Amino acid sequence: MSGCPLSVEGMASVLPASNKSMKSDRNTNVGKKFVHVQNPYLDLMDEDILYHFALGTKTHNLPVMFGDVKFVCVGGSSNRMKAFALRMHKELGCEGDGEEMKDICAGTDRFCMYKTGPVLSISHGMGVPSISVMLHELIKLLYHAQCCDVTIFRIGTSGGIGIEPGSVVITDTAVDSFFKPRFEQVIMDSIVTRSTELDRDLAEELFTCSKDFPHFPTLIGHTMCTDDFYEGQGRLDGALCSYSREKKLDYLKRAYKAGVRNIEMECTVFAAICGRCGIKAGVVCVTLLNRLEGDQITTPHDVLVEYQQRPQLLIATFIKQQLGLCRTPPPAPASPERTLQC
Amino acid sequence: MSGCPLSVEGMASVLPASNKSMKSDRNTNVGKKFVHVQNPYLDLMDEDILYHFALGTKTHNLPVMFGDVKFVCVGGSSNRMKAFALRMHKELGCEGDGEEMKDICAGTDRFCMYKTGPVLSISHGMGVPSISVMLHELIKLLYHAQCCDVTIFRIGTSGGIGIEPGSVVITDTAVDSFFKPRFEQVIMDSIVTRSTELDRDLAEELFTCSKDFPHFPTLIGHTMCTDDFYEGQGRLDGALCSYSREKKLDYLKRAYKAGVRNIEMECTVFAAICGRCGIKAGVVCVTLLNRLEGDQITTPHDVLVEYQQRPQLLIATFIKQQLGLCRTPPPAPASPERTLQC
Repeated sequence: MSGCPLSVEGMASVLPASNKSMKSDRNTNVGKKFVHVQNPYLDLMDEDILYHFALGTKTHNLPVMFGDVKFVCVGGSSNRMKAFALRMHKELGCEGDGEEMKDICAGTDRFCMYKTGPVLSISHGMGVPSISVMLHELIKLLYHAQCCDVTIFRIGTSGGIGIEPGSVVITDTAVDSFFKPRFEQVIMDSIVTRSTELDRDLAEELFTCSKDFPHFPTLIGHTMCTDDFYEGQGRLDGALCSYSREKKLDYLKRAYKAGVRNIEMECTVFAAICGRCGIKAGVVCVTLLNRLEGDQITTPHDVLVEYQQRPQLLIATFIKQQLGLCRTPPPAPASPERTLQC
Repeated sequence: MSGCPLSVEGMASVLPASNKSMKSDRNTNVGKKFVHVQNPYLDLMDEDILYHFALGTKTHNLPVMFGDVKFVCVGGSSNRMKAFALRMHKELGCEGDGEEMKDICAGTDRFCMYKTGPVLSISHGMGVPSISVMLHELIKLLYHAQCCDVTIFRIGTSGGIGIEPGSVVITDTAVDSFFKPRFEQVIMDSIVTRSTELDRDLAEELFTCSKDFPHFPTLIGHTMCTDDFYEGQGRLDGALCSYSREKKLDYLKRAYKAGVRNIEMECTVFAAICGRCGIKAGVVCVTLLNRLEGDQITTPHDVLVEYQQRPQLLIATFIKQQLGLCRTPPPAPASPERTLQC
């Protein structure tokens, strides 16, 4: 927990031990943007069990464990999110090789979670329902821990449309299967349409940062979210396929014309939930194939592994810039009183 | 791969090594119900890479690996599905303690898969999109392996409505958030409504089997599938909640009145896809809480662990009955030429 190059004031050390007693403290931190929930019932609860994280407000001291979190990085695969945590451990100059890093959610196999200094790395599985469960519990965790000024990134894999495999797409707008920037949330037996707006400035800052990596193409574009990998994305190689190759290509070309450059399965709900809870959010995905040319992912394993490191590399560099740990000047200077506790 | 109490004719041993050359053989097995796909493009493909399983028709001999599969058991949690595989290993009387059992999908962390004799155990993550990806690739796997007479079960956890926590619900009808027996599949930018019919006889047979376990209540009822654990199920403890306790209770009571006894997040698409591919399918979930009494899962860990074993116990017993390995007579006598290869 020591040995980081920056060691200044830490939020965690000044937080009271009790989760509940902290809530009134939010008003005393003027100018800070705290993570908020939109649920009047939550503060009335004596205890909050974050079931899918195997964490809780009575069993864990969330402010001490997570109070200094400034960046959260989420992605589908648990191996990839562990790799990202190890990368951040190294990039932040923390002691050791990181192999001793523990999965904070070891009490469950639903998600995995690692923390390195102010960076949290969490897996979310595949699809809207899975990431939705994770986001509800993550946001409650950040709220209970009284975190402020948090930025959250989704790093993922995706299918590209009309762009070179291996390209990295920074999402400007998350759209649904009908190319609309909306997320339809079913609340019991009602449907509510929510905005899927992401932080445009953050997307631009990430794009600027990507210029440090000329060995892979990076672009800003719309990302389409579907609820299915096969029929939902017009693949011809699923167990079910009732449409023609022509119809598939027509759909993908219409998507391209509407500004869509890649397809994945989580971005709309990610944008919708983060937006409602006041968290700055960005989506960065690498494309594993060009869907105009095929459906199967035939690229060799080692090439895919390198592709998957590209969003990680970009986000890790961006975080380092924000923390003032890069040679290149950060877009916004790191606050001098910011803490790094590895 | 030996030492099982039953050792008769095996499908795997009579299958040719090439996956492709087998397809014409289906016609020679009169009276057997082969797993089928509904995709005319699939047989035109030179190779099929099952990306999320890290398996493929050119890299793996699927008929030899899976040709004898008769029962597939799927569930959300990877730990639970490994536990089920170990249980089946023991119940089928296979040699060793099963600890040497390998994850067949070790090349990826998306899903895990274990095989014990004719029983395949696979995890599917949380939610419709995640299980949908798994089912497409599972059904293609069973098709390429020329499997026949396969029964598939989903064993899961769920929230109960108006029933004692720990109750096991055998699903007769999978319904959506509007209590309708349908699944709306988005195919590119079209929506197709599919039937969610499950095998009624199988549900009855499972219920008969449950009488061997009087220490927990088992019932047949409707199961509701939602796309979200928090707002979708009317919980008051999510990061977002814009409705009242009264509205939540009204919804749950209407669900109960419509025949719903438990809520989970996968059953409609499970029923829809299995139904279209001619696979006999059943859903058996334990309830972790009574949603009329609360939202949080506060039951102690060891009790939850015991609850989660109940669907496993029921399905393991049913499979043993079908294989003629139980003292109690099976509902339908096991075929004498059936093989067990552990």
